Amino acid sequence: MSTTTAHADTSPVVAALDIGGTKTSAALVDSSSSIVARVIGPTPAAAGAEATLDAAARLVRALSDGRVPAVGALGVGTAGVVDPGSGRILSSTDAISSWAGTDVGEGLRRRLGLSVAVDNDVHAHLLGELTSGRAVGRSCVLLVAVGTGIGGSIAVDGRIHRGRGHVAGHVGHMPSTASSGVPCSCGGADHVEAVASGPALLRAYNGQAVGRGAETADTLEEVAERAAAGSDPLAAEVISAGGTELGRLIGGLVNLLDPDLVIVTGGVSDCGPSWWTALLSAAQSGVLPPIRAASPIDRLVVKSILRADAPLLGAAQLARELAR
Amino acid sequence: MSTTTAHADTSPVVAALDIGGTKTSAALVDSSSSIVARVIGPTPAAAGAEATLDAAARLVRALSDGRVPAVGALGVGTAGVVDPGSGRILSSTDAISSWAGTDVGEGLRRRLGLSVAVDNDVHAHLLGELTSGRAVGRSCVLLVAVGTGIGGSIAVDGRIHRGRGHVAGHVGHMPSTASSGVPCSCGGADHVEAVASGPALLRAYNGQAVGRGAETADTLEEVAERAAAGSDPLAAEVISAGGTELGRLIGGLVNLLDPDLVIVTGGVSDCGPSWWTALLSAAQSGVLPPIRAASPIDRLVVKSILRADAPLLGAAQLARELAR
Repeated sequence: MSTTTAHADTSPVVAALDIGGTKTSAALVDSSSSIVARVIGPTPAAAGAEATLDAAARLVRALSDGRVPAVGALGVGTAGVVDPGSGRILSSTDAISSWAGTDVGEGLRRRLGLSVAVDNDVHAHLLGELTSGRAVGRSCVLLVAVGTGIGGSIAVDGRIHRGRGHVAGHVGHMPSTASSGVPCSCGGADHVEAVASGPALLRAYNGQAVGRGAETADTLEEVAERAAAGSDPLAAEVISAGGTELGRLIGGLVNLLDPDLVIVTGGVSDCGPSWWTALLSAAQSGVLPPIRAASPIDRLVVKSILRADAPLLGAAQLARELAR
Repeated sequence: MSTTTAHADTSPVVAALDIGGTKTSAALVDSSSSIVARVIGPTPAAAGAEATLDAAARLVRALSDGRVPAVGALGVGTAGVVDPGSGRILSSTDAISSWAGTDVGEGLRRRLGLSVAVDNDVHAHLLGELTSGRAVGRSCVLLVAVGTGIGGSIAVDGRIHRGRGHVAGHVGHMPSTASSGVPCSCGGADHVEAVASGPALLRAYNGQAVGRGAETADTLEEVAERAAAGSDPLAAEVISAGGTELGRLIGGLVNLLDPDLVIVTGGVSDCGPSWWTALLSAAQSGVLPPIRAASPIDRLVVKSILRADAPLLGAAQLARELAR
């Protein structure tokens, strides 16, 4: 007991995990929030929760080999609704098979012999931004993460707002202005995620491409490249419509929360300047006059610089809070 | 100085004002949050800020005649974006002429010789609910007030969330699912207020009634009565569509905030059971499975019981906090 404490006090290095539906990242993070070592592996999502925890533990062991006694604690950001008190997944999509109900904290504690703190990956991302990213020193911050899904996290008074059942932050499941009837991953319909996420934009492009007898695309990157090349009006239209839809939502959320900062992140945020321009323009049109007067929209709504590092840095912060 | 303090300590009665665009209410409130006296008068909104403050001060004087020395302080809820630190209106629609920029705190202090605390009327309403209404003991609460406009207020950790420039809470200026292009009071378009507020529903009814050669209505109450009577399908349609639109928004806001409670208030909330049923049904369809599993929608989303008393009770609470 006292040995563990001594290690936690003398070693400022903590371990961090970011467990996603496709890949899992592990890192060692020092006390100045620098990532000093990192390794990434596939998440064996289809093989289920135990296999996913085994793989995550292997990554941490590979990184901390020979220094495990020097690693004070482990912080974890993961997909799903997480109870950070117990480290358990309260609910989850089927991105990782049988993930809901998994006790991630206990599972990794048992495998690694470390103290473990767990939170949702988007909350961990925002915590990383608050600790060492664009949100340092800010009070109310909204994070919007656009990739396979559309996630979010809200900080109020510099602290993550979790809500009654730890569900808060689901910006992707707010109503879309495009009442298309497209079913959402949550079982609902007409949510923003169903029309503005990466898969939604690819689906929209391919659906219309078939109708126009044009070539379909395999990935959203291809669509973005075609849009950027300037020779594919459909690609340009779909990318811009995606930015507009998300920008309208962000404008509304700014009117609701009046945040100090909105940070946009995730794979879709690399869709090129036409996506970003459309997003900022729609957000600007939607915000109330006193907000428009207070600051230029491109200072209020910004992209993450930390990007994929942020959830790891947030997880490291969870670990540090644990060691205190 | 010490005399004032002595009065504040010995007298538990405070004065409260609710200054709206049409009418102003004044009340005396005792330490158990009971309204012990009340008077209502018209707001001389077109005559401007000074006339509005004169009228408000007259109401307080009429109430507290002979007991002014016993009234510890005055709390005020008013339309507009308010800086509660200074008591000044930061911005406002033209509901009250020249209201923006008015120092309501200083104006009433000068007129009445009382300490004055000022906040936005919807924030005051939520504070009233937190102090002595349905939100007592709750942590995260969303208030939605539907009348001439659609206002809102959010409590996090039991405290009103104000945002960077005191603008937070504007739920009516979030994107509508009915992309109708209808201009919004804020200068934007396609906001929920532009399609689901009282005037928006009346306008929608009359616009379609003219097209169908049917009789128009003078007030939303008339439309609601026709809908309730069961003989006017257009009225039923418009009332139900208004409830659905707001219910979709509330479902999305619940996914965003995961609140303990959503309180709906304002004149439009009296539109009858078909409006309320449509609202609850749309909210229920929109919420995420873990939220749906946590509680029945009609326990999560409820009507205010305090109603028009709430802003006065919230204003009284502001006054009490001032006296402390």
